[in-house]
Amino acid sequence: MTQDNNAHVKLISKPENMLRTVYTACRTCYSADSPLNIYDCDSAHDEEKMLKLIKRVISSGHYSTIEHIQISFAISNISRACSHQLVRHRHMSFSQKSQRYVKEKGQFEYLTPETIEKNSELKEKFDNFMRKVSEFYIELTEAGIPAEDARAVLPNAAATSMVASLNLREMIHLANLRLCTRAQKEIRMLVKKMCGELIKEEPWLKDYLVPKCDRLGYCDEDKSCGRKAVRVQ
Amino acid sequence: MTQDNNAHVKLISKPENMLRTVYTACRTCYSADSPLNIYDCDSAHDEEKMLKLIKRVISSGHYSTIEHIQISFAISNISRACSHQLVRHRHMSFSQKSQRYVKEKGQFEYLTPETIEKNSELKEKFDNFMRKVSEFYIELTEAGIPAEDARAVLPNAAATSMVASLNLREMIHLANLRLCTRAQKEIRMLVKKMCGELIKEEPWLKDYLVPKCDRLGYCDEDKSCGRKAVRVQ
Amino acid sequence: MTQDNNAHVKLISKPENMLRTVYTACRTCYSADSPLNIYDCDSAHDEEKMLKLIKRVISSGHYSTIEHIQISFAISNISRACSHQLVRHRHMSFSQKSQRYVKEKGQFEYLTPETIEKNSELKEKFDNFMRKVSEFYIELTEAGIPAEDARAVLPNAAATSMVASLNLREMIHLANLRLCTRAQKEIRMLVKKMCGELIKEEPWLKDYLVPKCDRLGYCDEDKSCGRKAVRVQ
Amino acid sequence: MTQDNNAHVKLISKPENMLRTVYTACRTCYSADSPLNIYDCDSAHDEEKMLKLIKRVISSGHYSTIEHIQISFAISNISRACSHQLVRHRHMSFSQKSQRYVKEKGQFEYLTPETIEKNSELKEKFDNFMRKVSEFYIELTEAGIPAEDARAVLPNAAATSMVASLNLREMIHLANLRLCTRAQKEIRMLVKKMCGELIKEEPWLKDYLVPKCDRLGYCDEDKSCGRKAVRVQ
Repeated sequence: MTQDNNAHVKLISKPENMLRTVYTACRTCYSADSPLNIYDCDSAHDEEKMLKLIKRVISSGHYSTIEHIQISFAISNISRACSHQLVRHRHMSFSQKSQRYVKEKGQFEYLTPETIEKNSELKEKFDNFMRKVSEFYIELTEAGIPAEDARAVLPNAAATSMVASLNLREMIHLANLRLCTRAQKEIRMLVKKMCGELIKEEPWLKDYLVPKCDRLGYCDEDKSCGRKAVRVQ
Repeated sequence: MTQDNNAHVKLISKPENMLRTVYTACRTCYSADSPLNIYDCDSAHDEEKMLKLIKRVISSGHYSTIEHIQISFAISNISRACSHQLVRHRHMSFSQKSQRYVKEKGQFEYLTPETIEKNSELKEKFDNFMRKVSEFYIELTEAGIPAEDARAVLPNAAATSMVASLNLREMIHLANLRLCTRAQKEIRMLVKKMCGELIKEEPWLKDYLVPKCDRLGYCDEDKSCGRKAVRVQ
Repeated sequence: MTQDNNAHVKLISKPENMLRTVYTACRTCYSADSPLNIYDCDSAHDEEKMLKLIKRVISSGHYSTIEHIQISFAISNISRACSHQLVRHRHMSFSQKSQRYVKEKGQFEYLTPETIEKNSELKEKFDNFMRKVSEFYIELTEAGIPAEDARAVLPNAAATSMVASLNLREMIHLANLRLCTRAQKEIRMLVKKMCGELIKEEPWLKDYLVPKCDRLGYCDEDKSCGRKAVRVQ
Repeated sequence: MTQDNNAHVKLISKPENMLRTVYTACRTCYSADSPLNIYDCDSAHDEEKMLKLIKRVISSGHYSTIEHIQISFAISNISRACSHQLVRHRHMSFSQKSQRYVKEKGQFEYLTPETIEKNSELKEKFDNFMRKVSEFYIELTEAGIPAEDARAVLPNAAATSMVASLNLREMIHLANLRLCTRAQKEIRMLVKKMCGELIKEEPWLKDYLVPKCDRLGYCDEDKSCGRKAVRVQ
């Protein structure tokens, strides 16, 4: 599999009453009315009205109101290099396939970086290499080495899978950081797919699931990729 | 309102596919199969089978798998004393009615502690007191003092409301701590109602939404309330 | 006490080897050398060199490197209104004076908002009011009402104290939000004092402990206070 | 290097006034006195007295008071498999050597699992394998593949290093989980060394830096290692 296009991503869970819940949260802060009355009022059935308020609150940076929404993704066909980056987002929840407990029986799956994929000679060597790793791994486990130790030979390219959950505030933060061209291509493509899955369900989120430079109005990295100019200070 | 019985609590949001999501998360850790395949397999439609696995995983203390489920409550008629305790749970998300932005127009609502409620003489004085506080608050705001400053006179008894969200791991933790008789009665009753709302929807959670002594098998406080003996060390 | 000037704030703890620890963390990410060697190298004794690197890393938004530094403040003479705002910073750690366990014996201390302080007539009424609250509180406790219930009558103005700890990343975030003129004056003055205490020890942090508009280059609120213009989009 | 004994661990930072800070935090909750007065009182210079209080508070499970203390470790010679486990502790802060930015020039360092180390035939094959991985990695980088992609071939055994910080509450939690024999040996030995470093400085922490069964009084895993019996329910 090519690393950069093959992440499988599916949104498997989002809250019932998503908009209504955020809308109720936003209005509760500024209203003499109880959240339950707000939740049951006419406006809480008027999608356009709710969206208008929610967008204004998010634009003002009052992100705590969107923490009430958590979504879950089933993710597979990403490399362990990529998952090591993803799990560094400490506001997320993960259940990842364990290399301690799941023993590889045949050739393990792996992801090929695009730069290697494009070079047919290197690509062939890469595939041969992965075959040899697999043979050695199986030799080790057949010699009685437990999976948790045999995995010492498995490469960063090895595929992994996980269920990952995060709230909307963290989802926007994740997009801001990982859609930036400074992020490695594999995680950038993964996060792009996560955003795509979510936008399919909630198109209004499109404006927020963007690289950080779109949010800031300038690039805050040392060098810009050209999308936005570096801030002049 | 009596403080101890009058919290209004309603579960306003939980994830679609709650059991299936947790089930998929649990099995992803130990399976060669992808989370998407697990999510779509026959077992993920067999509630009994899913529950059996989920209960075993929770009993083993592998709580990260239940972080994937987040629920939201609309809460009102609790005192500011109670909300100050609740917001100390830092894994929760809150949108609380603001005393800075919501000006009280007439008598503010308040909660009366049970110990005062039961004493008719003190209860009358308490109500009179609250009337006087209200009058002074309104005098201040009418003299041009902004609500954010006039609220300096509002008491801990003043009612507040909020939308509060938390994942299942934190829900169990909250129950463990706040159903203990060491917790103040108002928050104990509030959390009991939150648990009740959730158990109505997900009865299998009943065994986990208990005071911590039920989980530990002993009381870890200095003195026991009698429910479980203090641990002998 | 006037609410706005009287918070007592003292930095009571910071790490040994503060700069060296951050410097080691920053360089570990990009170096073939071990953190221990970096920690022991000549540069890790050259304050100017260390500061140059650390400032560059912070400016690039790589804030995780400054999480290694945690500082602790002893805070007193702030109102419960203010502490309710402060404890909403969920990355901080707090140990706050308990109104459940600490019974007020005489007149409780309280903070007077500046807008009331400036109006001598209202100020006199405010002080009289606080005396009456105190008398009723003491009447309740003498009638056998436990402190945890009698505190129902105590106002938001009542003074509280706490030990509060946070890492440098959260300290900068706290300053960015709470030095903004949108924050209420009492917490703004409190955070200003916290920043002042820290800058006394670590003057180089001055450039980062600023309102968010200084960091962003524009105001992201609905209306600007005039310090920076609202971003044109 | 043998994986199981060779982690290099050094405590590089802890707060000035560690005991006094925790002591002040503990007493602030229950005292009419201000934290600053507590911090300056005679008892706050009496180590024995302070320890007595702190131990009682920790034993009662009031762990928030020890969050005020954060410590930092320089860690090297652990495998990427081990670091992937460690960074899952989301209350910790990490600065880890980047395989994206640090290109390996010669043979990369790696850790050999004990089960392989003990088998001389497998050990020789393991070392040969690592040589071949290194050769292929260097071939890739010399062919112009960037380090961030070439690392796809690097194994879980590859050594990494980091600065890791955590507060005392998380340190006790980390010990409770990772000193359990269910944890993989490499991280168990790593955490043992971290505990050792800390206990050298603060011997009184010895009683808390233990496997969870010592804390609970029973084993809460499916099967016990024999240290404590599984809880009978």
